[in-house]
Amino acid sequence: MKVLALSGSLRAASINSALLRAAMRLAPAGMELRLWSGIGDLPLFNPDLEPHVPSPVAALYAEVAAADALLIASPEYAHGVTGTIKNALDWLVGDESFVYKPVAVLNASPRAHHADAALRETLKTMSAVIVEAASVSIPLLGSNLTESGMVESPSVSGAIRGALVALHRAVVLRQSDQGPTLPFVPG
Amino acid sequence: MKVLALSGSLRAASINSALLRAAMRLAPAGMELRLWSGIGDLPLFNPDLEPHVPSPVAALYAEVAAADALLIASPEYAHGVTGTIKNALDWLVGDESFVYKPVAVLNASPRAHHADAALRETLKTMSAVIVEAASVSIPLLGSNLTESGMVESPSVSGAIRGALVALHRAVVLRQSDQGPTLPFVPG
Repeated sequence: MKVLALSGSLRAASINSALLRAAMRLAPAGMELRLWSGIGDLPLFNPDLEPHVPSPVAALYAEVAAADALLIASPEYAHGVTGTIKNALDWLVGDESFVYKPVAVLNASPRAHHADAALRETLKTMSAVIVEAASVSIPLLGSNLTESGMVESPSVSGAIRGALVALHRAVVLRQSDQGPTLPFVPG
Repeated sequence: MKVLALSGSLRAASINSALLRAAMRLAPAGMELRLWSGIGDLPLFNPDLEPHVPSPVAALYAEVAAADALLIASPEYAHGVTGTIKNALDWLVGDESFVYKPVAVLNASPRAHHADAALRETLKTMSAVIVEAASVSIPLLGSNLTESGMVESPSVSGAIRGALVALHRAVVLRQSDQGPTLPFVPG
């Protein structure tokens, strides 16, 4: 099972990126989790470019098509989603393989509810399947935990591992429900 | 009086950009309104770059500093703000000259309330002064009106002109209240 992780922050010391790198190290057996490093290379979304998307966008489409699920962690900037994560999603609106994709949303700052709610609203509108059992809040903001600190913290690593196990289970259930056929994708 | 207009869409045929170009032609005497063409050249926001911002960001800061007010028109993508407009605002969070700037938000699609609400929430969080009398809905989506069609339509041009006159009045009132001094900018 392949899971594509997207961080909505380009900051080198981003707590959200660290959370996703910790998740890579905590992934259960059978799950290959990879943090996509290309999100900062995406051009700003322009629908005029969609017939022949720029290569970083084509790379994103290929990653999404190859993934069984997505895992998103993104900060809140000025009570909103980050331009970086929304820009990636704006490109994915036109990507058929995103439709019905299981997505888990981690929130590293439970008090930051605006961005989390807006992100979920957008994902639902894009017909993603939000895996609620895997979409957890993990209070990390202000904790100063590094990636290794997260892996070593029993509470944080437990929360991350619990989310990943729930995501794994949801994807397995979904795939066994559907058998080898793909879901019907409208239009 | 200088007003800087920002469109949240990079699409050449964007109805929001056309609305702002129509506004340029309808600006009242004493108001110079300019649609900034650089928004699509901004890199994705990265706080690590803030000490020495890339030149398109420096250009944005200079435009904002020189403007008495901002006029924003931006579409809704998947029930959210566009990555393009949010990315510009993410850069402006760190720009002191944005604080207390009068901002009007035009909404070309009154049924699209998610993006409009999210944009206002972010602007308020950034300490912009939203000029409500100038922040109007102008139902244009599906109208197929071009920029010239907007200027020639009595109802549309009337609504645009009314918004610009309200913005002009708010800026004049504000500047006369404050006299020649600048507002106190915390931090």
